[in-house]
Amino acid sequence: MERIDFSKVKITGGFWKQKQELVRNITVHAVYNRFSDTGRFEAFKGDTSRFTPHIFWDSDVAKWVEGVAYLTMEKREPKLEAIVDELVDDIEKMQDENGYFNIFYTVMEPENRFKYRGCHELYCAGHLMEAAVAYYNATGKKKLLDLMCKYADYIEKRFVIDKDTGFVTPGHEEIELALVRLYDCTGEERYLKLSEFFVNQRGMQLEDGIADWSMQMYCQSHIPVREQRTAEGHAVRAVYLYCAMADLALKTGDIRLKKACEDIFDNIAEKRMYITGGIGSSQEGEAFTVDYDLPNEISYTESCAALGLALFANRMLLLDPDSKYADVVERAVYNGFMSSISLDGKSFFYTNPLEIIPMHHTRDVSVTGKSRWLPIMSRQEVFDCSCCPPNIVRFIPSIANLIYTKNEDTLFIHQYMDSAADIEIGGKKVRVTQKTAYPVDGKVQISVAGGDINIAVRIPDWCDSYKGETNKGYAYFELKENSPIELDFKMEPVFIEADPRVLDNCGKYAVQRGPVVYCMEGVDNGEGLRDIRLDSKGEFTVEDSKEFLAPILKIKGYRKEKSPTLYRKKTNNYVETEATLIPYFAFANRGETEMQIWNLVK
Amino acid sequence: MERIDFSKVKITGGFWKQKQELVRNITVHAVYNRFSDTGRFEAFKGDTSRFTPHIFWDSDVAKWVEGVAYLTMEKREPKLEAIVDELVDDIEKMQDENGYFNIFYTVMEPENRFKYRGCHELYCAGHLMEAAVAYYNATGKKKLLDLMCKYADYIEKRFVIDKDTGFVTPGHEEIELALVRLYDCTGEERYLKLSEFFVNQRGMQLEDGIADWSMQMYCQSHIPVREQRTAEGHAVRAVYLYCAMADLALKTGDIRLKKACEDIFDNIAEKRMYITGGIGSSQEGEAFTVDYDLPNEISYTESCAALGLALFANRMLLLDPDSKYADVVERAVYNGFMSSISLDGKSFFYTNPLEIIPMHHTRDVSVTGKSRWLPIMSRQEVFDCSCCPPNIVRFIPSIANLIYTKNEDTLFIHQYMDSAADIEIGGKKVRVTQKTAYPVDGKVQISVAGGDINIAVRIPDWCDSYKGETNKGYAYFELKENSPIELDFKMEPVFIEADPRVLDNCGKYAVQRGPVVYCMEGVDNGEGLRDIRLDSKGEFTVEDSKEFLAPILKIKGYRKEKSPTLYRKKTNNYVETEATLIPYFAFANRGETEMQIWNLVK
Repeated sequence: MERIDFSKVKITGGFWKQKQELVRNITVHAVYNRFSDTGRFEAFKGDTSRFTPHIFWDSDVAKWVEGVAYLTMEKREPKLEAIVDELVDDIEKMQDENGYFNIFYTVMEPENRFKYRGCHELYCAGHLMEAAVAYYNATGKKKLLDLMCKYADYIEKRFVIDKDTGFVTPGHEEIELALVRLYDCTGEERYLKLSEFFVNQRGMQLEDGIADWSMQMYCQSHIPVREQRTAEGHAVRAVYLYCAMADLALKTGDIRLKKACEDIFDNIAEKRMYITGGIGSSQEGEAFTVDYDLPNEISYTESCAALGLALFANRMLLLDPDSKYADVVERAVYNGFMSSISLDGKSFFYTNPLEIIPMHHTRDVSVTGKSRWLPIMSRQEVFDCSCCPPNIVRFIPSIANLIYTKNEDTLFIHQYMDSAADIEIGGKKVRVTQKTAYPVDGKVQISVAGGDINIAVRIPDWCDSYKGETNKGYAYFELKENSPIELDFKMEPVFIEADPRVLDNCGKYAVQRGPVVYCMEGVDNGEGLRDIRLDSKGEFTVEDSKEFLAPILKIKGYRKEKSPTLYRKKTNNYVETEATLIPYFAFANRGETEMQIWNLVK
Repeated sequence: MERIDFSKVKITGGFWKQKQELVRNITVHAVYNRFSDTGRFEAFKGDTSRFTPHIFWDSDVAKWVEGVAYLTMEKREPKLEAIVDELVDDIEKMQDENGYFNIFYTVMEPENRFKYRGCHELYCAGHLMEAAVAYYNATGKKKLLDLMCKYADYIEKRFVIDKDTGFVTPGHEEIELALVRLYDCTGEERYLKLSEFFVNQRGMQLEDGIADWSMQMYCQSHIPVREQRTAEGHAVRAVYLYCAMADLALKTGDIRLKKACEDIFDNIAEKRMYITGGIGSSQEGEAFTVDYDLPNEISYTESCAALGLALFANRMLLLDPDSKYADVVERAVYNGFMSSISLDGKSFFYTNPLEIIPMHHTRDVSVTGKSRWLPIMSRQEVFDCSCCPPNIVRFIPSIANLIYTKNEDTLFIHQYMDSAADIEIGGKKVRVTQKTAYPVDGKVQISVAGGDINIAVRIPDWCDSYKGETNKGYAYFELKENSPIELDFKMEPVFIEADPRVLDNCGKYAVQRGPVVYCMEGVDNGEGLRDIRLDSKGEFTVEDSKEFLAPILKIKGYRKEKSPTLYRKKTNNYVETEATLIPYFAFANRGETEMQIWNLVK
């Protein structure tokens, strides 16, 4: 099985066209400006006069470069390219003779290079490699790629040949998957071997933890990767590792690695994932915790983790065309990932809570600055640790990577986006076109030009209306030229319940329409959302919304009457109300207000 | 209005007789042993070789002495008295010439006496004064009283006359109410004036906070006390202050002070009190927060705060015989206070949560010691800050203080306990007897010997069955000799709901029978209590329990079926189960297990 690279697929309309235009016109510039303001670009010139670089600034900038590359792939962006070219020149100047490069360690602490496992050097290196590959693919400019190959060679020398570094495997994974991309781009097998080295060594010996408060589990080093069966530790580190494991399983045919990926995926999807596709339910370590522990208000659910889960699940499709993987991609992308960027494209969530109660942020009136940690209530333009914004900049322009895979004779359609793709399959060069307003509605017209092909289309997990046969969630058709297939996945708003072992959701129901999870906000419904019982008959009114790019839902609701006494015998007195639900991904765009996904029903 | 002191009232049977025997036979010794183990008694000899005294150890020991005095009042305890007498001799030896006494500052930091507002010296002094009054009243031994009068005189000199101390009002209230008791005992008006001084000065000037993390509100110093309308800050400090305010309002007829007490009480009872009578909903500052903020799992609800609320509410009855005060006394005593001591009398809760989910204590598996604060799940024998255990030792033997007040011609019966009281009223000396199994059932036989009297009996707020006339919650009768009154407050288990502004309880219902709040425990019902929906028809089976001293309740319940997928469309599939509820005050006596008060209902 092989992916149809997004460079072959043009998003032509609908939801994703609008989001891609937003990134091109607004977000890529907004992130650049904030990164410039905060000294991230001048650091690459060795200029630390205004700001001391952080150890992960390379990765912030690298992801932004990768985003520029992806935008460039579709339409050149000379101004942005000029910035990248200057940056590449800076990197060339700052890079050591031996190939080492890191804007923090080169300038601030050269004596500590490759000494501390927790210091993100290989993580930064990985993102620079991904950027190098992307920029080369987009522009044909090879300088950054050459610099990064030199760096990769040096890493191989130090870690594999000389073995004179302060640690064996990085505290934050990323280089493992990046080296696979470097291998794919250059064909140099030693990069694949280097990736395997890092993946295989993880958990094989007692390494230093990355900090005194972290367990080996925090960075997935508690046992060898092939023995891992549950998703553990820092959620972003975890899914980046699992991406690399899936890549290697595919490249090498290692069935033990594949089995580990499958079991870990099932553990996430069946026990450790929010309805939004968010993962990492604890702020302590930004980490996975234990099965069914999914608190809503204190969820960490980092944007990068939802994105990383989509990347991991999308890779699993290459190992096994089972729709459960594409369903998780869809869930994460339309909800826990999409919530991370504001509708105006300028600001970002790092954490994506499933419930907000503003009062809880200010409840401790008698002490100073001592309230319990809660996710912030509105998006910010930049963070000290700003991994998420540039991750968004690179993900949305490459969103079409999620749509297609193919084997010898069948084109698998995993995601529905208004698009046109040029694909070689079964010896034919065809153009496959999707016409759809998805996720506004579930109608998808699929057509082919250039020859007849076999297709397998995913029947989404939320869809009840498809009655034909499926194999692992895919319906198989022959798609003939001049005879489009019309899919119609009926999108009705429905109540969803969680497994009762998710204690935070007992007695509560989420509303989902198609792949989009809905929420209530205080700005629409008044304070005290937990008191609103949605009418169990579920007669929703669906209203189009240009603002949110997905419909608004309205439904009858009931509130309890307020009481003169704090406690009273159970009553059956309710006040009728109208409840308004908006797509979760659009929450917190109208000021700081209450929000919840899981609702009472009556 | 005047209180019938508990020295005139003998508890003769039932619930409280058993609890008083427990304190006499077990608890008073258990607390003594733990206090000895931890060096609290040897510190009074100036011996700090094993342990450095804490700044609040005087108060721990003083409350224990007060408890011994109350036990002694009914039946002499020579061994305990000998310990107290030796302690009093130690205090005499350690006390400064000028009257100052504090086991920490005398030994450890004499140069810092009366320098820092947050250092509990006057709090300790207050408890020593209460102990002195109690021990004198119980035994006629006057030495401790004399020593403490000398100390009080010195405090007056330093704070009122010389004004050369490092602060004006204490950071932790207690001395204010203690000085009123000292005045009541000695008749020395200057102690009343000194109490007034501390109460009146509070919030009148900008004083140092007690710590850099505390606001003036933390110790009720944000505004003058007569302007306070809401319960704020550290809950124990707050209710001790309110006790003194109520005392002074009664003694001086100050209507502004009375009004402040009334409004603060209403704020607590209507907006800031758990169904258990627990107060102080945040661990940050062990404090009140804002209206309707009553989270169950992270409730702080200190034992001393529930006890203090009962003391405050009980004082309010002297200002205004309104049953709302006695209802809160009852709620706090049978629930949030009574939960603080184990059934075997040996161990104690400092915090009394309304919900326990053991998994949440160990969820953060990938980091070390970084989980969010949660109340402990089982009682301990002693704490570093061990204010609660000796508070229990003094409160239970004096429980009969809650029963009666009188004015010129009417005896008010606020609480129902199997008891016999010798009372002077309307010129007669009568014996009033209650025969009752309360709170096991609601039948109370009240009789009088020695003459006919007028009585006013409280109709509990939970009681629906009484149909006669009431005035402010009291039914008025003439109680004739040889013609007992038989009250029968029908105790049916009922579902209780909270005002919907208590967001944590929306859609949930507590079970209460008479004054006793019930809970479910995992040990009876299996894990996942939040998933259990109690049958809304409310057909409870009531089973006697010798173990708990109040009945066990059983009712049909429903659980959702477990799901192979984490999320699914709303189902109506339930598995029937039997739910067992026990009195909340008896929770956590059978190991660490899930517990909850607020339940789903179907």
